[in-house]
Amino acid sequence: MAKSRRITLIGAGNVGWHLARHLENAGHQLREIYSRNLKNARKLVNNLYDAYPTDSLDFSESDAQIFLLAVPDDAIPAIVNEIILPENAILAHTSGSKGLEVLSHLECSSGVFYPLQTFSKAKEVSFEDIPILVEGEDKATEKELIALAKSLSNEVQAVNSDQRRILHMAAVFACNFTNHLLSISKNILETEDLSFDLLKPLLLETIHKALELGPENAQTGPAARKDIATIKSHLSSLEESPELAQIYRLLTESIMERRII
Amino acid sequence: MAKSRRITLIGAGNVGWHLARHLENAGHQLREIYSRNLKNARKLVNNLYDAYPTDSLDFSESDAQIFLLAVPDDAIPAIVNEIILPENAILAHTSGSKGLEVLSHLECSSGVFYPLQTFSKAKEVSFEDIPILVEGEDKATEKELIALAKSLSNEVQAVNSDQRRILHMAAVFACNFTNHLLSISKNILETEDLSFDLLKPLLLETIHKALELGPENAQTGPAARKDIATIKSHLSSLEESPELAQIYRLLTESIMERRII
Repeated sequence: MAKSRRITLIGAGNVGWHLARHLENAGHQLREIYSRNLKNARKLVNNLYDAYPTDSLDFSESDAQIFLLAVPDDAIPAIVNEIILPENAILAHTSGSKGLEVLSHLECSSGVFYPLQTFSKAKEVSFEDIPILVEGEDKATEKELIALAKSLSNEVQAVNSDQRRILHMAAVFACNFTNHLLSISKNILETEDLSFDLLKPLLLETIHKALELGPENAQTGPAARKDIATIKSHLSSLEESPELAQIYRLLTESIMERRII
Repeated sequence: MAKSRRITLIGAGNVGWHLARHLENAGHQLREIYSRNLKNARKLVNNLYDAYPTDSLDFSESDAQIFLLAVPDDAIPAIVNEIILPENAILAHTSGSKGLEVLSHLECSSGVFYPLQTFSKAKEVSFEDIPILVEGEDKATEKELIALAKSLSNEVQAVNSDQRRILHMAAVFACNFTNHLLSISKNILETEDLSFDLLKPLLLETIHKALELGPENAQTGPAARKDIATIKSHLSSLEESPELAQIYRLLTESIMERRII
């Protein structure tokens, strides 16, 4: 069992919601729960043992040791400007796309505590398998944050800000763009009154194969087999949707590693 | 239990491999197993009860009722030119991207029997949940093929050639292109010595959310929240990979439904 820590959470959104409860389950003590909107902080506190809701960023009297900043990226600067921390505090943000430097002008030890998962309040997640990527401005801070992360997850890794930015970008390709391709696919099916559910078994098998064999060994389809006739037929079906045709052409060319037109 | 049919399979590749064994399990009788390479036909026959391997396309003496053509798209024309079928036979191809017309000059009842899944010999699949999309040149043929499909799967649907072409194209977006985005993502991670496994929980959750909520309700990421700073930072990380930058820009713009540059 890891050492119990006193933790204050800044932000009562999706990430904060799951973090707070899993931290408590792991034996840590939640102190203040901050939200700009006190109502949100109260809602989360109601699910916790002994935390305290607040809409003030003056934590000078807090006895928390670690402050986790779980707010949207664009809310970080305003909070960092206003926050008052007790001495010897560690402040770590939970953002995949922000570097350590967004906290660097504060008089505290700064770090990053980034759980690589998408959260929604309504859906329980098992934290054990979620990679938590940690960075500290110095070895002591990093060690402290790694210990905290390991109390939640079996997949803890120290990564620097460059690596984390690359990881976040890779996640945009693998997840955000993938989801958008599914939207496009669903729209295409709807033009012929076909259900997106028809693709479900194929999609799940595609993902499982990619994870099992590596995506580079699992590529199939007209581009992979250089089936120009099918590619041309698809492009002609997309004639009235130049944007989709452009996406089709670009990804096809990228798979084939050459220009088709 | 559906009526047992006598079936000949043309092609002993991945699709044929799974089809033959599941058809037999469903109570049908496999007759000839054709492969251009007799060795492949023999291998499949060894896994069947009473089938017969052949490398001849003269089936005039066959007592099979249904001939399933499970060969790569580009092998269809040569086979169609050469094949000799008995009277009253049904010939159905298993291709998602070819229309009924590729069989139309033959003196037989033609149809399509398209299982919407990706197959590999080494991996067992449960056929029950795989959509089988059926088309027949006339009602009687379609009825016969639907009955055959229903003996294998609970997800049988009659679709015409236009619908099937659209479905195939939608599958290219949802599966082939998605797999390619995973390859890109893995390559990006490797530049920073990061493992693709780190993205696994996020990817699986992304896919499950898309299937549960609909992808149009599950879009997240910098493009969805119009986070121009992050988008610009990613594009500058991709400066040395103009092809990836173009894919990033195009998909980002498509999510945002407007030009960013």
